[in-house]
Amino acid sequence: MKYNFFNDYSEGAHPNILKALEESNLIQETGYGLDSFSLKAQELVRALVKNKDVDVHLVSGGTQANLIVLASILKPYESIISATSGHINTHEAGAVEATGHKIDAIEAPDGKLTPELITNLVAEHEDEHMVKPRVVFISNSTEVGTIYKKKDIERLSAYCREHHLYLYLDGARLGSALTSSENDLTLADICSLTDVFYIGGTKNGAFLGEAIVIRNKELQKEFRRMMKQRGALLAKGRVLGIQFAELLRDNLFFDLAKHANEMAARLSSGIAKLGFKFLTNSPTNQIFPILPNRVIEKIQTMYGFYVWSKVDDKSSSIRLVTSWATKEEAVEEFLADIKSVVS
Amino acid sequence: MKYNFFNDYSEGAHPNILKALEESNLIQETGYGLDSFSLKAQELVRALVKNKDVDVHLVSGGTQANLIVLASILKPYESIISATSGHINTHEAGAVEATGHKIDAIEAPDGKLTPELITNLVAEHEDEHMVKPRVVFISNSTEVGTIYKKKDIERLSAYCREHHLYLYLDGARLGSALTSSENDLTLADICSLTDVFYIGGTKNGAFLGEAIVIRNKELQKEFRRMMKQRGALLAKGRVLGIQFAELLRDNLFFDLAKHANEMAARLSSGIAKLGFKFLTNSPTNQIFPILPNRVIEKIQTMYGFYVWSKVDDKSSSIRLVTSWATKEEAVEEFLADIKSVVS
Amino acid sequence: MKYNFFNDYSEGAHPNILKALEESNLIQETGYGLDSFSLKAQELVRALVKNKDVDVHLVSGGTQANLIVLASILKPYESIISATSGHINTHEAGAVEATGHKIDAIEAPDGKLTPELITNLVAEHEDEHMVKPRVVFISNSTEVGTIYKKKDIERLSAYCREHHLYLYLDGARLGSALTSSENDLTLADICSLTDVFYIGGTKNGAFLGEAIVIRNKELQKEFRRMMKQRGALLAKGRVLGIQFAELLRDNLFFDLAKHANEMAARLSSGIAKLGFKFLTNSPTNQIFPILPNRVIEKIQTMYGFYVWSKVDDKSSSIRLVTSWATKEEAVEEFLADIKSVVS
Amino acid sequence: MKYNFFNDYSEGAHPNILKALEESNLIQETGYGLDSFSLKAQELVRALVKNKDVDVHLVSGGTQANLIVLASILKPYESIISATSGHINTHEAGAVEATGHKIDAIEAPDGKLTPELITNLVAEHEDEHMVKPRVVFISNSTEVGTIYKKKDIERLSAYCREHHLYLYLDGARLGSALTSSENDLTLADICSLTDVFYIGGTKNGAFLGEAIVIRNKELQKEFRRMMKQRGALLAKGRVLGIQFAELLRDNLFFDLAKHANEMAARLSSGIAKLGFKFLTNSPTNQIFPILPNRVIEKIQTMYGFYVWSKVDDKSSSIRLVTSWATKEEAVEEFLADIKSVVS
Repeated sequence: MKYNFFNDYSEGAHPNILKALEESNLIQETGYGLDSFSLKAQELVRALVKNKDVDVHLVSGGTQANLIVLASILKPYESIISATSGHINTHEAGAVEATGHKIDAIEAPDGKLTPELITNLVAEHEDEHMVKPRVVFISNSTEVGTIYKKKDIERLSAYCREHHLYLYLDGARLGSALTSSENDLTLADICSLTDVFYIGGTKNGAFLGEAIVIRNKELQKEFRRMMKQRGALLAKGRVLGIQFAELLRDNLFFDLAKHANEMAARLSSGIAKLGFKFLTNSPTNQIFPILPNRVIEKIQTMYGFYVWSKVDDKSSSIRLVTSWATKEEAVEEFLADIKSVVS
Repeated sequence: MKYNFFNDYSEGAHPNILKALEESNLIQETGYGLDSFSLKAQELVRALVKNKDVDVHLVSGGTQANLIVLASILKPYESIISATSGHINTHEAGAVEATGHKIDAIEAPDGKLTPELITNLVAEHEDEHMVKPRVVFISNSTEVGTIYKKKDIERLSAYCREHHLYLYLDGARLGSALTSSENDLTLADICSLTDVFYIGGTKNGAFLGEAIVIRNKELQKEFRRMMKQRGALLAKGRVLGIQFAELLRDNLFFDLAKHANEMAARLSSGIAKLGFKFLTNSPTNQIFPILPNRVIEKIQTMYGFYVWSKVDDKSSSIRLVTSWATKEEAVEEFLADIKSVVS
Repeated sequence: MKYNFFNDYSEGAHPNILKALEESNLIQETGYGLDSFSLKAQELVRALVKNKDVDVHLVSGGTQANLIVLASILKPYESIISATSGHINTHEAGAVEATGHKIDAIEAPDGKLTPELITNLVAEHEDEHMVKPRVVFISNSTEVGTIYKKKDIERLSAYCREHHLYLYLDGARLGSALTSSENDLTLADICSLTDVFYIGGTKNGAFLGEAIVIRNKELQKEFRRMMKQRGALLAKGRVLGIQFAELLRDNLFFDLAKHANEMAARLSSGIAKLGFKFLTNSPTNQIFPILPNRVIEKIQTMYGFYVWSKVDDKSSSIRLVTSWATKEEAVEEFLADIKSVVS
Repeated sequence: MKYNFFNDYSEGAHPNILKALEESNLIQETGYGLDSFSLKAQELVRALVKNKDVDVHLVSGGTQANLIVLASILKPYESIISATSGHINTHEAGAVEATGHKIDAIEAPDGKLTPELITNLVAEHEDEHMVKPRVVFISNSTEVGTIYKKKDIERLSAYCREHHLYLYLDGARLGSALTSSENDLTLADICSLTDVFYIGGTKNGAFLGEAIVIRNKELQKEFRRMMKQRGALLAKGRVLGIQFAELLRDNLFFDLAKHANEMAARLSSGIAKLGFKFLTNSPTNQIFPILPNRVIEKIQTMYGFYVWSKVDDKSSSIRLVTSWATKEEAVEEFLADIKSVVS
């Protein structure tokens, strides 16, 4: 295998993180996320979102973040509205339902929710024999690589406030969204327009770690007990604090994401030049070119990637994912190889 | 503060782990615990427990291990028998109950369960209006630093098999138990006498990580889905694999635990020489000397530790915890300081 | 209001039931479903399903039956396949999710599942990051009044056995299904082709009560503890036993359902003669005529019923439900009134 | 068997209830507790508790009432304080834990909680690694037949308000408590001193039914969705409404309870005259005489009752329960028989 484009978590962590882990190693710190590094990371987040009153909590992964946030927000009879393709609705093994809550799923072809898509569902659920929707769950970037523009989230946010709904944004790949060529949002925008969101570290240069940001004060209470209850308070919470303190210093988080996007854009551009189309318009680090099956079979002998979906009898979409660690040479070699396979 | 004896997770990880993380950093690996390092770690565990058929899963922490193991074993109406002092019954913020199960707690002065302590509870719960006990939960070492001897676990194990109960051992501090001066158990013994147990990494030299070992074949099925559902499958599962591969190579795991025990023993011995007694007979890395309150107050200005319990109006027990990283000098200085305070 | 066709639970219970409650009133009986009447009812069920080895449990209502059966069957990571219109997926306020399980919903225009509709979903869920489907949930009759034919259930049953799935049938309106003009199934067929099902009493002449029948021996264990845990063991379980003993004696259960079907058929026939179509082909006690909105408005001033769905700008479907207690005169009067409104 | 004193749910319902069921049988009513009888019952409760703003909900049984009330009140990390002997802690098969919540149990020799018994537990649970107590659960009468006096509940109520705790009273046998010779509480007192409580019908003359009364406005919201979710909304909710409308009219509820108490008092008095002692001082309809085992064995051949607990090698306590339906002749015959056995 020359290189794999399976995902953005195939490598370890950015070297700055390794260095920081090493330098801090023998300092004695308080456990369970009350260490000085975690406090530092929380301050960096507050500065970036331009809001001193947010609560910030570091957890190990995205499914963990999602299940804890949602379980802590909802009463037993309340539900979550999500796109059918939403990660919580598909690839979290029923994590949200295991906390007792229904997901009300809505088809959204490009993975993005809008007030128009939601409004009927909300109206129907006034019936007291049904669950009561209380959170709208979105991801930026989405599962299919698309992003929300500022006006998209403003409209959703206004709708949610009007309809007594919380807006929660899964930011597993928020770095990629915010540094994409089409983006017009800042972290501060995201923070002010949502009630809770998280900044993904695992898929953007950390070994592990996501930073949950709770702006809505009603939702801040006793969140650490929720984390403890779900096994999310690491004894050596410093491991998460050190990583976020590094990522959020000197723009590293954004630089890494931008690099991943650039590598994906170069792949897209090269593949488009060969005349192929794409399943979605993705300006982020996941792209979904549609290729003839015979091309896919040959390329698969050299590179790692997932075949995503059947398009027609002769062609399928594949998913190529780049990361902070993807090398330009790998991208160029892939493009050369696909060109040679095609011709 | 000269030094803190608050716990065994105040520092980072053993240098070998840092080195291994660094050396492997840019190798592309499969995600979610299917990487070569995790596979290697699993093999090392299988060799140590002398059983090729066990399933091994690496997770982030002890509460996570406990809640996933117990939720995966039990039917909704089944319960867990634990000592009142058991970690799941006190300091996991209701993690087990949040999975829907009752803990049937039993007073056990030294933190250890026996068939004699359990037998009445089991008999009473034949009543179908009650929960049905199905797992006996024990820790080695216990919350108060005591350990199980081989015959203790043999008796419990025989009782459990006879009464249709699973035996689960929380090994957050198993390294310390197995290297204590009074120990007569091996990892292979633990494995064959229990149905499931875990080997604690976090409190013995890892940044994070516990290795769950499932010997009972009935309990092995679909455990990874359970892990995913509870947010325990790390995208970069390699982080756990690399650490356990290091810890379990060349006896490092046992060497680190032994060092922690030796430091604790030296503290015990020095404190005993000053004429003080202890709350429990602990041969492990947590000791509970009983000191006059005025001594405690003075020592607290220099060292970090928890005051554990009131013993009488003039004295209390404190908890001192040592780790793989505790330096002899810190121990000697503490003993000198307490001697000087006392005299 | 001349009469309401809102549902089949608008009246009390069949007079035989009232009489039996009265006659037995001062007999001292054991509590919690172990009384002689409940035992008698269980025997009557066993005779009707022609299987002496089934377990029979009486509970208060359909949602309760569904949530207890499903929670007792499933491991935490397992899910239920249901039609999107399935009662558990819509009108049980998240009862199943509250027990921790995801419902995998599939669009089924006539409310009926088939192997063809299910097969892709089952294949996709081999992915261990997803829930694992384990039960196929069907209703007979369905939410839209349609019924399963013998070959429908035989095919589903065969598919389920082949794919390690349980088949569970919600029989809230099973009486109506089994006495409909198009039916070719018996209670014994239903029993042998499913793993669990229930016989609905509430909507067929009882004050309250559903009889859960568990044929699959694996699923029989400790079901009473599950019932107790979910608040379903009535202290005076006799109330349920007495009712089912009456309903299942001398064919009363089937006679009552047949009457309801006949009343519905007469309504259907009369409405069809006026030239109106129906939303679904229902041979049971729920029918869904499509009427001009102006007709609906006028009829609503005289009769109670639900407007079911918008069909086009000028017409909607309504739901008319008949019961064991619906009088012929009410049906005739309704038909006369609608005729007069139309003309 | 001459008569059984096993419990207070051995017979059916008071004749007035049967009559009311019969008279109302063919009236068409709205389903799910919105019928006119349920509304009437709610008004009667509001009048009795002298508070027009309480919400009243009728459910089938005590375990159901307890699990729904507690699940609706608590956030996932919150727990319930109960006496070790509390019904939720022993004989509800883990119903509360199945909703995700821990019960913090406290030994209370006479089954009654006090601020003094609770205060340490509340203080210890400030630790964020523990669950956070949020409800104090009491029963009146208790599991051992004792009752709370007005000042007992006033003190508990004041303590709870001061410590941000809700007070919930399980009134399965509230009728018996409020009509006991030692009682000084009214229903209105109970209502104003607790946040939620329920009035037990099943054990005081109804076939089934408990009336949950929610005074605290914070706890009233969306309770019907909670009931639906847990399978507690009966389609023919009228069955509960009709019964409570009868029980609460013309003092019937209190008259029935008083009769049960009088029968128990006569038993107590007769047994005491024979020189026997009692396990607890019970002025209610459950009494616990301590008898020689040889006496118990003989009496058991004639009467039904539970042997409650071993007192010493030669004697045990038994439980005798009377009800609205217990006849004086049965009591007299029992006393005569025991006298003859003893002598």
